[in-house]
Amino acid sequence: MAVRHRVVILGGGFGGLYAAKALRGHDVDVTVIDRRNYHLFQPLLYQVATGSLAPGEIAAPLRAILRKQKNAQVWLGEATSIDVESRNLILKDGLIPYDSLIVACGAQNHYFGHADWQEVSPGLKSMEDAMDVRRKVLYAFEAAEREHDPARRKAWLTFVIAGGGPTGVELAGALAEIAHDTLRSDFRSIHPEEAEILLVEGDNRLLTTFPEKLSAAAGQSLTELGVIVRTKLRVTGIDQEGVTLSGSGKTERIDSRTVIWAAGVAPSSFGEVLVKQAGAQLDKQGRVMVQPDLTIAGHPEIFVIGDLAHAPSDKGPLPGVAPVAMQQGRYAAGVIIARLRGQKSAPFHYFNKGNLAVIGRAAGVADFGKFGVHGVLAWLLWLFVHLMYLAGFQNRVLVFLRWGFQYLTFSHGSRIITGPALKGEAE
Amino acid sequence: MAVRHRVVILGGGFGGLYAAKALRGHDVDVTVIDRRNYHLFQPLLYQVATGSLAPGEIAAPLRAILRKQKNAQVWLGEATSIDVESRNLILKDGLIPYDSLIVACGAQNHYFGHADWQEVSPGLKSMEDAMDVRRKVLYAFEAAEREHDPARRKAWLTFVIAGGGPTGVELAGALAEIAHDTLRSDFRSIHPEEAEILLVEGDNRLLTTFPEKLSAAAGQSLTELGVIVRTKLRVTGIDQEGVTLSGSGKTERIDSRTVIWAAGVAPSSFGEVLVKQAGAQLDKQGRVMVQPDLTIAGHPEIFVIGDLAHAPSDKGPLPGVAPVAMQQGRYAAGVIIARLRGQKSAPFHYFNKGNLAVIGRAAGVADFGKFGVHGVLAWLLWLFVHLMYLAGFQNRVLVFLRWGFQYLTFSHGSRIITGPALKGEAE
Repeated sequence: MAVRHRVVILGGGFGGLYAAKALRGHDVDVTVIDRRNYHLFQPLLYQVATGSLAPGEIAAPLRAILRKQKNAQVWLGEATSIDVESRNLILKDGLIPYDSLIVACGAQNHYFGHADWQEVSPGLKSMEDAMDVRRKVLYAFEAAEREHDPARRKAWLTFVIAGGGPTGVELAGALAEIAHDTLRSDFRSIHPEEAEILLVEGDNRLLTTFPEKLSAAAGQSLTELGVIVRTKLRVTGIDQEGVTLSGSGKTERIDSRTVIWAAGVAPSSFGEVLVKQAGAQLDKQGRVMVQPDLTIAGHPEIFVIGDLAHAPSDKGPLPGVAPVAMQQGRYAAGVIIARLRGQKSAPFHYFNKGNLAVIGRAAGVADFGKFGVHGVLAWLLWLFVHLMYLAGFQNRVLVFLRWGFQYLTFSHGSRIITGPALKGEAE
Repeated sequence: MAVRHRVVILGGGFGGLYAAKALRGHDVDVTVIDRRNYHLFQPLLYQVATGSLAPGEIAAPLRAILRKQKNAQVWLGEATSIDVESRNLILKDGLIPYDSLIVACGAQNHYFGHADWQEVSPGLKSMEDAMDVRRKVLYAFEAAEREHDPARRKAWLTFVIAGGGPTGVELAGALAEIAHDTLRSDFRSIHPEEAEILLVEGDNRLLTTFPEKLSAAAGQSLTELGVIVRTKLRVTGIDQEGVTLSGSGKTERIDSRTVIWAAGVAPSSFGEVLVKQAGAQLDKQGRVMVQPDLTIAGHPEIFVIGDLAHAPSDKGPLPGVAPVAMQQGRYAAGVIIARLRGQKSAPFHYFNKGNLAVIGRAAGVADFGKFGVHGVLAWLLWLFVHLMYLAGFQNRVLVFLRWGFQYLTFSHGSRIITGPALKGEAE
């Protein structure tokens, strides 16, 4: 009996998982490798950060997702390099041989070289990030409750979100709701509704990938929720005491104990491994340049998909969003299957179904290219799409119930602070 | 206007929370102080540890519980001492003056002086403990999946639970279910159902606070679930590689990478502060000896309740269980109110409604003193009682749904591993 074609998939995010699923029932052996034992539904991370959802509700064990797919196995592991000659993926503690390799490592927070910002200003890329943000936000209210000095109290109640993309917009909306509704009656000394939530964007409008009209609608919805939207301002400094903003030749200092980073992500550093070992080229952002079939030039057996890939397109590189990764995952799987059958594949083509962002309780924006909607309809669409894609039946039901409950009661259920107390803060 | 009587409650567990709630609507100012921002439903911690429930489902923010109680406030803080002369509770970062003080700090894991055991063998007293246990258990299966050496693989698949009290029994039952049902199809190299779950008890039977007949029934149910019950064996050593057991003059070594500590708890060390500052007496176990009205001799303004208290009773000290703490909390509140009205209070009397423990999917034991039941009826009772007491409406609904779902599908939903990878284990 011939050995089956071995497909190794590095990363269990949207790209990797959809590639694995697309290989179900085919005559290949699939191994999914991830440092984490779960698939994370990243678009909802901000809801964990604001205590609307519990961590387990936006994550599903990779094993559980793939348990019925007999040709797939899951390995917990961290890849450090590859050997393209012997076709082995090199892990920290072992080797995995492949016939086809799909690299889908995604992206990470990027602080533009300011490593010190990272320590005081968590981003929103991992579950740990989200728990960090939640801890910081909830502790800030606790610390404010106990602070007598008005200036220091104000700094605790000032929340700065750097970056006006979808993550920043959604986070700002959710934070405003928490402060202005959920926590309203929880405190005795402070009024959480006095909390200031600032959303800072370097460009001249929010949601720059959306049409201008929808950007304006999003800004309007945020303002109604009490968010202070500041555009054309760049973050030039972050420390424990606050943030420095620059724009139009002026510099401004805002005292804030909670600065959240939603201003930049960079592709996984595994791209550099591919440069060194497989002769790949990176673009300016660090993404791996791939062929129309998503493989590296000279290595048709190595696919790069999702946030790590720069696929050719007539409109410039594709955005680092879940639908792109999913479609690329399915495509790469299709190319592998076609090759085994001796068939050729058409180049990858991204089908853009539209972009969505949600702002608070019942508002959102949706861009479908030819037309856009905003308000309740966009919010309902967002709700529907996210529930559709949330992996795992149980989560979908639980999340739906929780959202329904929150909508009716203005409550956010997951407000417990776990883990160590923050340094220099209330203990 | 006279200053209102200030009641300070140290600890937001069952004792402290029920004391605070009992003071609702009365002419006192209540301050609840806790290191954590949430009340933890400890009896269900083992379900978080085994991935049946998510952390947020057995915890509710203290602020949310007390939000409508206008005379109560919550402070996040850690008490280090008291000044009985000036009647101030001394926190790490401040003072809180009291007229009446209710100390309800509970208990912590106790390793009988073996500090090194603590590092390798987490207990089950805090949320962090439960997450540690979950991480260890899930990683053990992951590591076994990747281990080729049969002996090492067996050590990964051997789980030892030290202590055959309610926590140990419930944990063993839940672990057996996970290994034998939930994870059955998740792995490719190992068979989770081959996992060995050992429950080790020093006494000659499990659940020593229950009648012998129910102990035997519990042992029988566990054996049916595949748990190996070993009695009359003491743990004399725990390290990264396994556990040493001694009994009947013999010593035995069991290779296991996962040893969970359910063999002992000790009262909070705040008892020593009370000895030093308020002249309190401790019993041999470190509990504070209290008067029939639960106050310290010579300090009628200081109450000690719950696991930290040794209240006089004709049947010896009361057990460290939630119902005792709840009743004592309510009682202490009643004494304070009565005093303000110039009334006297009868001594505290514990009304034992019965003891319950659950074993796996549909079995349990219930002891009502005069009679006991076991099997499905005890399990249903347990289900009912726990849902009744679980704080917060939303949690109750969610937990009920999740249990229903798990009962029907044999699945355990919260199986994601967060936090840092374990040292020396799969990464």
